[in-house]
Amino acid sequence: MLSISKRGLDMPASPIRKLVPFAEAAKKKGVHVYHLNIGQPDIETPKACLDAVRNAHFNVLEYSHSAGNESYRKKLTEYYAKNNIQVSPNEIIVTTGGSEAILFGFMACLDAGDEVIIPEPFYANYNGFAIQSDVKVVPIGSKIKTGFSLPPIEDFEKAITAKTKAIVVCNPNNPTGYLYSATEMETLMQIVIKHNLFLFADEAYREFCYEGKHTSAMHLKGAEQHVVLMDTISKRYSACGGRIGAFVTKNKQVLDTAMKFAQARLSPPYYAQVLGEAAVDLPDDYFDVTKKEYKLRRDTIVKRLNNIPGVFCPNPGGAFYAMARLPIDDSDKFCQWLLESFSHNGATIMLAPATGFYSTKGLGINEVRLAYVLNAEAINQAMDCLEAALKVYPGRC
Amino acid sequence: MLSISKRGLDMPASPIRKLVPFAEAAKKKGVHVYHLNIGQPDIETPKACLDAVRNAHFNVLEYSHSAGNESYRKKLTEYYAKNNIQVSPNEIIVTTGGSEAILFGFMACLDAGDEVIIPEPFYANYNGFAIQSDVKVVPIGSKIKTGFSLPPIEDFEKAITAKTKAIVVCNPNNPTGYLYSATEMETLMQIVIKHNLFLFADEAYREFCYEGKHTSAMHLKGAEQHVVLMDTISKRYSACGGRIGAFVTKNKQVLDTAMKFAQARLSPPYYAQVLGEAAVDLPDDYFDVTKKEYKLRRDTIVKRLNNIPGVFCPNPGGAFYAMARLPIDDSDKFCQWLLESFSHNGATIMLAPATGFYSTKGLGINEVRLAYVLNAEAINQAMDCLEAALKVYPGRC
Repeated sequence: MLSISKRGLDMPASPIRKLVPFAEAAKKKGVHVYHLNIGQPDIETPKACLDAVRNAHFNVLEYSHSAGNESYRKKLTEYYAKNNIQVSPNEIIVTTGGSEAILFGFMACLDAGDEVIIPEPFYANYNGFAIQSDVKVVPIGSKIKTGFSLPPIEDFEKAITAKTKAIVVCNPNNPTGYLYSATEMETLMQIVIKHNLFLFADEAYREFCYEGKHTSAMHLKGAEQHVVLMDTISKRYSACGGRIGAFVTKNKQVLDTAMKFAQARLSPPYYAQVLGEAAVDLPDDYFDVTKKEYKLRRDTIVKRLNNIPGVFCPNPGGAFYAMARLPIDDSDKFCQWLLESFSHNGATIMLAPATGFYSTKGLGINEVRLAYVLNAEAINQAMDCLEAALKVYPGRC
Repeated sequence: MLSISKRGLDMPASPIRKLVPFAEAAKKKGVHVYHLNIGQPDIETPKACLDAVRNAHFNVLEYSHSAGNESYRKKLTEYYAKNNIQVSPNEIIVTTGGSEAILFGFMACLDAGDEVIIPEPFYANYNGFAIQSDVKVVPIGSKIKTGFSLPPIEDFEKAITAKTKAIVVCNPNNPTGYLYSATEMETLMQIVIKHNLFLFADEAYREFCYEGKHTSAMHLKGAEQHVVLMDTISKRYSACGGRIGAFVTKNKQVLDTAMKFAQARLSPPYYAQVLGEAAVDLPDDYFDVTKKEYKLRRDTIVKRLNNIPGVFCPNPGGAFYAMARLPIDDSDKFCQWLLESFSHNGATIMLAPATGFYSTKGLGINEVRLAYVLNAEAINQAMDCLEAALKVYPGRC
């Protein structure tokens, strides 16, 4: 009998997508499902971006440069400059989504058995990339009661061993929506400099900050050689299907090494580079409209959640996620029950159990992540469902 | 000082692209460079495919399913059926190029330290994917004097150890152009069944066979659970920049495992799936025209090469590559010299030194790979250059 690999066995199934069959069954029964489970925005992709692809003229769909089209990398430097990040086209590798940027970072900087510290809860797919690169994720806890702020410096110090090579910070955070302050980012800088670590910064949601300003890891003066920015256009321009991201660093050795991984896979996708290039020329108020919409949704969902007896939801400062503590026994069971056994006015909701975002077993059992990727009216209806569900859920505590 | 990973150090730079700076310098001097070094076809991408992308209408560029759009996977089953390969949409994962299909295969089936046997010379990026998955490539030699036919079964038997988990076959072959016969494919089948190995089949050049018929690994009756097909639309439809491939297997456990890796990276690129879907409906004679063109080029280049004193080039049965033995000391030096120090009528040629395609040190030192991706006229001019160069190259043997 042929056997698959151990790492294949260890690889986690997507915690977000594992409920999909239950959602499909609910829909077949005629139940409407409000999808708050996945970070697929409903915001339209800017027409100028879609048109740029439609109007691109070439006769051969060629490989682009392994680092991405030069014209796009040049354009990206304008985008970064607007965000007070000064980089040259040669400090950017265009990647296949933010996913590939994360994988390149793990592969280029970490060896088998090395450790990477990540405040938990964290983006579940970091686990998948860690298994692919045989790296050990060492979680340190951020807490719902503080809104998932940066864990205290002592927690980092305690977690650091001789094998620790990097810290991952996702800012604003997925899944918590927490926006790290300038002070917190400086704390991270001190830690990575003191202990000689890489700082991998996932800033997929940079534009979506509702209070306060975004501090990029690339703003940290003195940490330039430590920082690798892992970026993507997916959420920024509602262009998830394009699969275009970026690996950005001022550390030349890291960049040159990541470039070898980029060469092995030949090139990033061509079409969405055209889309991304056009996006940089969107009017300066483009994000204002989008942010206003997301802020309305956030205010709506957070208010509704905190008005449900037994529910607590800290106000997330960024991204389009909220984490809520519910009066339930088991978030996996609850989310499945919502799809399998519950409906309210012909509808139910799909949420992401928070267990999938924690690396420490047992954590997140009474928490869920809600992606506010539906409009305020739909969010209100979804919250009606949740409120009704919590009244009758058999596993209520 | 922060250090990169050991695997990052071990990762090979692209043997094909490392000469690029020399080519750029030659062009700056006003020398025309005939590019026979890289598998970027000059054949136009079918207009119907490009138009399908232009005419695709949607308002949000969403993630596709992690396995690829269902409509595309359904369409792909029609394509495979035309090639006498019966698969269902659930036996296909759409990948980001053939590259990702190879990586998924290594990751899902092999663990760190496992061995994969590959007849050499082989596609250089297999080395890169092996390093990423910490797998050891065990080369066995195919020889230019037999046109790079399958090494004898005894060579496989000798190379197999307790750690051997798979054999990779690229058919038709890159870099040799060799087309494996039905008998050779059956030999491989016997080996993988006897020794309980996976057979990873890279069939990127399936359509480009000039004599004889293509035998897919998926045709091997009795080996269904062993075979993983690693496919791509890049060469088939001259759509390299799309980055769309496929991972196809009837082994459900392997497919389910690869699917977890697919979920971690969320989805393959959307646009080129639309292109690939349209491609399946191209008229049946589409490949006839393309094949006729490539055959003319092959006949031209092989004849010219064998007419140069001291040069030997076996006639490749497929793909669009030819390997030639040259009367030179060192193919790396020679290829660099061509760009740095030589021109003929204001032009020179860029070739791929064969050393990068061999895993065994010292092999390929007097061989080069030529990709016949230019038209016959340009090929003749390029061969004029090569002929003139070999007369004056200081390292001629």
